[in-house]
Amino acid sequence: MECGEGITLLRVLGVDPGLAKTGYGIIDYDKCRYKYVTHGVVETSAEDDISLRLREIYDKLKKVTTKYKPDEVSIEGIYFAKNVLSAIPVAQATGVIHLVCAQAKIPAVEYSPLKVKQTIVGNGRAEKNQVQELVKLLLKLEKVPEPDHASDALAAAICHCNNRGFKQ
Amino acid sequence: MECGEGITLLRVLGVDPGLAKTGYGIIDYDKCRYKYVTHGVVETSAEDDISLRLREIYDKLKKVTTKYKPDEVSIEGIYFAKNVLSAIPVAQATGVIHLVCAQAKIPAVEYSPLKVKQTIVGNGRAEKNQVQELVKLLLKLEKVPEPDHASDALAAAICHCNNRGFKQ
Repeated sequence: MECGEGITLLRVLGVDPGLAKTGYGIIDYDKCRYKYVTHGVVETSAEDDISLRLREIYDKLKKVTTKYKPDEVSIEGIYFAKNVLSAIPVAQATGVIHLVCAQAKIPAVEYSPLKVKQTIVGNGRAEKNQVQELVKLLLKLEKVPEPDHASDALAAAICHCNNRGFKQ
Repeated sequence: MECGEGITLLRVLGVDPGLAKTGYGIIDYDKCRYKYVTHGVVETSAEDDISLRLREIYDKLKKVTTKYKPDEVSIEGIYFAKNVLSAIPVAQATGVIHLVCAQAKIPAVEYSPLKVKQTIVGNGRAEKNQVQELVKLLLKLEKVPEPDHASDALAAAICHCNNRGFKQ
């Protein structure tokens, strides 16, 4: 990866949205170095109404943004799905995450999974475990962050730091 | 349409979600009779960030639910799309509408466009103008409610009243 210039201590929240599991991860980015802050996942039950599940995601992400005060948010978006029905709940979750950002006045950007992989591994078709290993390496962690959704969220945050640099 | 039994004065908010235009329409349903209350549309600009556009939809729908206090919400959902990319923004808008409902503790149900047409016209493949004419007729309006999204929202509300009856 090349490095963006002129960025001093930017806190980025990465989010990997899903109705059942929404992963989040926060990193600080200072002069091309990443520092891990936290990660986690919001899990909702398929037994609950979709409205309640989306409210849980909204409430949790609101707490995360209030506590950690990220400067920018990077969301792994959907740009392809074999089945529209599988993409809809993910998009609905993405909608409430955008709302959290707008209410907290935090700029939010979406990146495709392909872009995230391209940025981190250098290959848009990289395997999931390759991305996870590089997230671990770049953030100097002892093990791959779990669950998958949280490490994907950290990957989205790293992706944003890197691509954001070019826009400066 | 057949008629649900035992429903006395139920206020239903129908919503036809979209990122650019979200239609809404409110009706009262009392002993199998519909009474038109109001309708409108939230329009957002493609020049704004998606987060801000979703916040506008959220804010407006929140105002509508606070003012009119619907008992239940009927949302026209997405169950098919030729292109996933066109379905995503609609689903994102649907997500924030579900959130408004959950926060106000109003039960929300989604109906497919096919189900709405089937309920109102008796034919899931009915033309748009047939649905609109029947909305006008059933609500005793002088003209078809405009824009399209608002009459679709009223159609969703009627659909819910009718189908809800069977569940009683």
